[in-house]
Amino acid sequence: MHIGQKRVHKTKINIIDYNAETFDEKPVDKVEQCFPFKDRPMVTWINVEGVGDTGIIEKLGQCFGIHPLILEDIVNTNQRPKLEDSGSYLYIVLKMINYKKGENLTVEQVSLILGENFVISFQEGLEGDVFDTIRDYLRQHKGRIREMGADYLIYSMLDAIVDNYFAVIENFENRMELIEEALVADPRPHTLRAIHILKRESIVLRKSVWPLREVINSLERRESPLIKEPTQIYLRDVYDHAIQIIDNIETTRDILSGMTDIYLSSINMRLNEVMKFLTIFMAVFIPITFIASVYGMNFKFMPELYWPWGYYTVLGVMATIAASLMAYFKSKKWW
Amino acid sequence: MHIGQKRVHKTKINIIDYNAETFDEKPVDKVEQCFPFKDRPMVTWINVEGVGDTGIIEKLGQCFGIHPLILEDIVNTNQRPKLEDSGSYLYIVLKMINYKKGENLTVEQVSLILGENFVISFQEGLEGDVFDTIRDYLRQHKGRIREMGADYLIYSMLDAIVDNYFAVIENFENRMELIEEALVADPRPHTLRAIHILKRESIVLRKSVWPLREVINSLERRESPLIKEPTQIYLRDVYDHAIQIIDNIETTRDILSGMTDIYLSSINMRLNEVMKFLTIFMAVFIPITFIASVYGMNFKFMPELYWPWGYYTVLGVMATIAASLMAYFKSKKWW
Amino acid sequence: MHIGQKRVHKTKINIIDYNAETFDEKPVDKVEQCFPFKDRPMVTWINVEGVGDTGIIEKLGQCFGIHPLILEDIVNTNQRPKLEDSGSYLYIVLKMINYKKGENLTVEQVSLILGENFVISFQEGLEGDVFDTIRDYLRQHKGRIREMGADYLIYSMLDAIVDNYFAVIENFENRMELIEEALVADPRPHTLRAIHILKRESIVLRKSVWPLREVINSLERRESPLIKEPTQIYLRDVYDHAIQIIDNIETTRDILSGMTDIYLSSINMRLNEVMKFLTIFMAVFIPITFIASVYGMNFKFMPELYWPWGYYTVLGVMATIAASLMAYFKSKKWW
Amino acid sequence: MHIGQKRVHKTKINIIDYNAETFDEKPVDKVEQCFPFKDRPMVTWINVEGVGDTGIIEKLGQCFGIHPLILEDIVNTNQRPKLEDSGSYLYIVLKMINYKKGENLTVEQVSLILGENFVISFQEGLEGDVFDTIRDYLRQHKGRIREMGADYLIYSMLDAIVDNYFAVIENFENRMELIEEALVADPRPHTLRAIHILKRESIVLRKSVWPLREVINSLERRESPLIKEPTQIYLRDVYDHAIQIIDNIETTRDILSGMTDIYLSSINMRLNEVMKFLTIFMAVFIPITFIASVYGMNFKFMPELYWPWGYYTVLGVMATIAASLMAYFKSKKWW
Amino acid sequence: MHIGQKRVHKTKINIIDYNAETFDEKPVDKVEQCFPFKDRPMVTWINVEGVGDTGIIEKLGQCFGIHPLILEDIVNTNQRPKLEDSGSYLYIVLKMINYKKGENLTVEQVSLILGENFVISFQEGLEGDVFDTIRDYLRQHKGRIREMGADYLIYSMLDAIVDNYFAVIENFENRMELIEEALVADPRPHTLRAIHILKRESIVLRKSVWPLREVINSLERRESPLIKEPTQIYLRDVYDHAIQIIDNIETTRDILSGMTDIYLSSINMRLNEVMKFLTIFMAVFIPITFIASVYGMNFKFMPELYWPWGYYTVLGVMATIAASLMAYFKSKKWW
Repeated sequence: MHIGQKRVHKTKINIIDYNAETFDEKPVDKVEQCFPFKDRPMVTWINVEGVGDTGIIEKLGQCFGIHPLILEDIVNTNQRPKLEDSGSYLYIVLKMINYKKGENLTVEQVSLILGENFVISFQEGLEGDVFDTIRDYLRQHKGRIREMGADYLIYSMLDAIVDNYFAVIENFENRMELIEEALVADPRPHTLRAIHILKRESIVLRKSVWPLREVINSLERRESPLIKEPTQIYLRDVYDHAIQIIDNIETTRDILSGMTDIYLSSINMRLNEVMKFLTIFMAVFIPITFIASVYGMNFKFMPELYWPWGYYTVLGVMATIAASLMAYFKSKKWW
Repeated sequence: MHIGQKRVHKTKINIIDYNAETFDEKPVDKVEQCFPFKDRPMVTWINVEGVGDTGIIEKLGQCFGIHPLILEDIVNTNQRPKLEDSGSYLYIVLKMINYKKGENLTVEQVSLILGENFVISFQEGLEGDVFDTIRDYLRQHKGRIREMGADYLIYSMLDAIVDNYFAVIENFENRMELIEEALVADPRPHTLRAIHILKRESIVLRKSVWPLREVINSLERRESPLIKEPTQIYLRDVYDHAIQIIDNIETTRDILSGMTDIYLSSINMRLNEVMKFLTIFMAVFIPITFIASVYGMNFKFMPELYWPWGYYTVLGVMATIAASLMAYFKSKKWW
Repeated sequence: MHIGQKRVHKTKINIIDYNAETFDEKPVDKVEQCFPFKDRPMVTWINVEGVGDTGIIEKLGQCFGIHPLILEDIVNTNQRPKLEDSGSYLYIVLKMINYKKGENLTVEQVSLILGENFVISFQEGLEGDVFDTIRDYLRQHKGRIREMGADYLIYSMLDAIVDNYFAVIENFENRMELIEEALVADPRPHTLRAIHILKRESIVLRKSVWPLREVINSLERRESPLIKEPTQIYLRDVYDHAIQIIDNIETTRDILSGMTDIYLSSINMRLNEVMKFLTIFMAVFIPITFIASVYGMNFKFMPELYWPWGYYTVLGVMATIAASLMAYFKSKKWW
Repeated sequence: MHIGQKRVHKTKINIIDYNAETFDEKPVDKVEQCFPFKDRPMVTWINVEGVGDTGIIEKLGQCFGIHPLILEDIVNTNQRPKLEDSGSYLYIVLKMINYKKGENLTVEQVSLILGENFVISFQEGLEGDVFDTIRDYLRQHKGRIREMGADYLIYSMLDAIVDNYFAVIENFENRMELIEEALVADPRPHTLRAIHILKRESIVLRKSVWPLREVINSLERRESPLIKEPTQIYLRDVYDHAIQIIDNIETTRDILSGMTDIYLSSINMRLNEVMKFLTIFMAVFIPITFIASVYGMNFKFMPELYWPWGYYTVLGVMATIAASLMAYFKSKKWW
Repeated sequence: MHIGQKRVHKTKINIIDYNAETFDEKPVDKVEQCFPFKDRPMVTWINVEGVGDTGIIEKLGQCFGIHPLILEDIVNTNQRPKLEDSGSYLYIVLKMINYKKGENLTVEQVSLILGENFVISFQEGLEGDVFDTIRDYLRQHKGRIREMGADYLIYSMLDAIVDNYFAVIENFENRMELIEEALVADPRPHTLRAIHILKRESIVLRKSVWPLREVINSLERRESPLIKEPTQIYLRDVYDHAIQIIDNIETTRDILSGMTDIYLSSINMRLNEVMKFLTIFMAVFIPITFIASVYGMNFKFMPELYWPWGYYTVLGVMATIAASLMAYFKSKKWW
């Protein structure tokens, strides 16, 4: 098995085994403990956190009959979301997105294997997931999940991941609105940088969610016997949610590109303001400074210099010129 | 039933029950009063305003056999417009758009359930709707609506909602024209902000209307026995209107993006004007101020200072320089 | 019948009735005079100018068996171009575009009804149309039009309308070229406004012509018995023309958006030029004015002031500095 | 026959008649001389240069049974590239592009008629064509062309025209590179104008080549008995070339739009440079000029004026201020 | 055989001949040495480096029955990636991309011929390739490649080429990030030029990779008996990788276009800063210089000049004015 990055993380395996009557949950130390669950009639959910230890994944794959190329895809965590149908099982790749630790957007790959009566989920990271609600429903026998098969479990997991996107987009939109306010109040270079970061995040979101639409759609329409008919209406519901999220992402992209325009024109506006101020200031002082220079000349024969009221007259002329210019600028709305 | 936002508003229910001969209209206090209407041969229109009280909606859903996922969609008011066919009834989601209270664009979700001989409509808000004309036609037996079935009632409601979009777009276009005039006369930052608000509103409009096209189209072509053949030509008409509205929205988007260009270039133009003014002003005064400074120097041996007409000669030279420069700028069309 | 705008204009009706042998043309005062023509074996063309008088149109519609929804579309003149096939007749909506009175683009709706042996055309306005060539061909028995049926008449009308678009686009392109020259010679705010007006007109043109393509295409491929086989090759020809017009409109849009860029950069260029002039001017005068100021100081002990050639030396230094700076700017190509 | 522009040019007709054994080539004075070639078993290529004389074309059309609408298209030289199959012959419209006389892009329409054993080609202009290689191959019995039928001749002509596009695009790309270098070295308004001209030319190229793809594709896939099976693989080859040309045109468009950005930012950069220079210059001189002005005041009681080293001290202070300011600007990297 | 550029390079031929049991590898001097391998049951890989010597390629083509048009495509190295199925063999064109020698992106054409039991690969250049891993696997009997047929060898070569794209894109993204940092720290004209170069490279990448998707897809779905069923799942894997690469290229294009915006606004921001500095500087000195000029006037009757504290008062007034102006600018956040 040829793998891109050999990151040997710890791997945590957890098994949940249930049907309408019984429920069993336990962490697993050795991957071999999973093998007996393969052929039991109950629904088995094997959750693997951390895909760095390729040995464990290889063993699990051999036991459950998973193709080596799919095992490679599980370990290489830069796959696009996709669905593959190998007849005896379905393989689904998804992206789980979170704003963990402060404001960084983290993208984590989740691979799901749906067999006749088992689901195996592989998570890239060890920091937890969005499936806690599902575990609660299973433990406390809430909703219909315990009555349904492995396909309903897959639906629940898809639903949990897609619902989490709504939370991510809400966070995204909140930050976008904060920046939008800053844009009008006080545009600065870091505002533009923030817009740029949002744009990059929206690209990441888009890349994660766009292919999802195709995945869920082909899951819903597939004639695979692994997806039972009562589950299809639920998949349709998840499909609608995915479309909605794509819609929202496209909308944020439109708004973000409008924000760049506003930023640039605010900057321009400010420059304009500064230039007008400077122009008015200089235009008022330059002519009166010129007059002062004229009467600073040392010509012997300058009659005005000997007029008794010459000085005051010149001061008056200067004041008149300054006042007229200011009135002119006022009339031109430069001020 | 799992719901996004638990907003417990008041809920108002109103029932209209009619056929060609009889007509009955009454408000309903308890949701149970609606149940007897389910199996009557007359057409029944149950209008529910306010979807905050999930208990009532759940009861109504159980009585009329509506799937829990659809009830969820009715209560979650951020659905995209869509059509779902569950065999015994059709479920349609639409957006009702209004400029209520001043200039704010409000979007309200309307869910319609079309059964064999009933229509149930759920409105997000309590502030009234665009269906008053339909009620008048029903009460006063105008047009053909009393002769037709529940599918014609659904058509009438779609038509009322789509016709209302025309009013919204007209309002939108009027505001756009006002801003366009302001753009030429006196561009200011708030003009750009107004353009940005219009852009966001056009995004909202687009999001509400684009999927509508698909909804009405699949309604028209559907072989569901719930849509009778004589109603299809009317649906085709509504479809044409929806296409026209989409056309208009796309046009406004094109025009809005042109307006941003005009704004930016107007700002640039103004800066240009200010800079030209400043340049002319300074270019005229700087050389003559220099001459004045020269004759302000205190050298002992400066023959010009002792010429009898030196002062007047210098003033004349200054006037000549200033006039030549102004003529030069005039010739360059800077002025 | 429910109509958007109730504009009661005068309505003019004109009837042309022909076959290969006979030809009859007369204006009609009362709409009832049209009715006998319905079942005659000759081809009848009823041309209605002005659609404000809904009574007349309703009567005509009833006589010729036209659906009320189509009558509504005829009277509401903001339809998109479209084709509707109701079995016994075809309904076609088109836009007739003109540069009437000076430079204003006027868009006028033309509705055509094609029956077995009649054509009814409804024109929005009263100011004439583009069908005069067709009338001449009919009157003077030119071409094959008198030998052919009503479908060939419809083709001739489509062809006349589409040919007129070529004239409109030629006018459009001429104005575009005038503006393009102005752009290079002397860009001014009204130039940009002219570009913006052209952009809006190109949007209007596009809206009118794009759907036309679909209309003619489905007309050509339709199995409606109303379109005879020999006419289809002519429709194919009109289709090619429509495609060509769409091509031309798209091209003008591309060119127009390039023109905005040129405008903005010309403005920028001019600002640059002004700034360079100002900079050179100030940079030459500021240092020599500084020198003059230095020798304008009143210190008692300034030996240069008492040099016999001090004044001339300083003037020489000033000239040298000014010349060096100008040479420097020349070398930097600022000048 | 109704024709757009009645340009009566001279028309030159040339006939080539060949099979594997014999070859005959002669210019023709009267169009009637072409008629006997119609029914001969050899392949006949009638080449008509100049389409201004509609009489000749009409006669030729009647003899070879070509539909009047197609004759109109031959004479109207603003057709889009297209293919029409009338059963007994195929009609192909193409654009031949050249950089004739200096740098002007000339577009010339070529119409081809492919019959069972003849090809008629109509060229818009009289200035020669790209078919000389084909004539040489025919005359000298090179390649397989003399062994093959009229369909292979058509292929050769398509191939010659498409190969010529490569030459045109290479010329185009060379000019684009020259401008790109000028853009970096010394951006001027005429550089932008050159970019604009290239953009317009790329629009013309695109308009000529895009539809070609469809033409060749439908030619290749058509079941017309006029295209024999061994020729189809050659058509596939031409198709690949057409796709490649379209690819190249799209690439040039991308690059051209990037060049406008570079131009604008170069202009901005220059303005920045000029402004920085001005700012540094003024900021250095303004404070020291102020100091000079202070000591130019005529107050009676200014002790500094009477200091023996006052003048030199002030000069020193001025030099210190100027040096500090220059160091400050250096540290800010404005210099 | 008609070829675009006649470049007579040296040509190196290498043969690998293997099955599960035996392995033979040898360089070949004369092309005729390849011919015996054609009909042997073992898998033969003939690798031809350098396609300048058309004689050799023609001989090889004749021996293996390859169509002359395909031989032309092999020699003309500006083909788009494509797949051609001629029944007895498949012809695949690909682009091998490298950052050889410093930072230049080199694109090299690789042509692959897949026959029943042979693969012929033609490489444009002589500088080596990305197939060394495959040779190692073959030599050392690693993996399953020795057990599989010629189609698996083709898959391995596609896989090697596509995997190499990942390396190229990683290099590309690293450089993009370096530029992005420079953009924020210190934007300069060469930064923009670097962005422009990246854009052009991304266009080249795109042109090479986009058609690849189609090639691999049609290879995977093709019913050609040359592709055995067990190889198809591997092709599906390569297809997924190609999609991923296309995704990444699109993302870099989005980011690059955002970077141009940031560059332009940084430049604008800097201009703003310079202008503010200049404005503050001038606005502080101009009024106090004016005051100094006033008291430099030579009027006989200026009482202030004779006040004992006149000089110090004026200095104080000047300091007050300068301080107030600076406080004002501080309050306006210009500083």
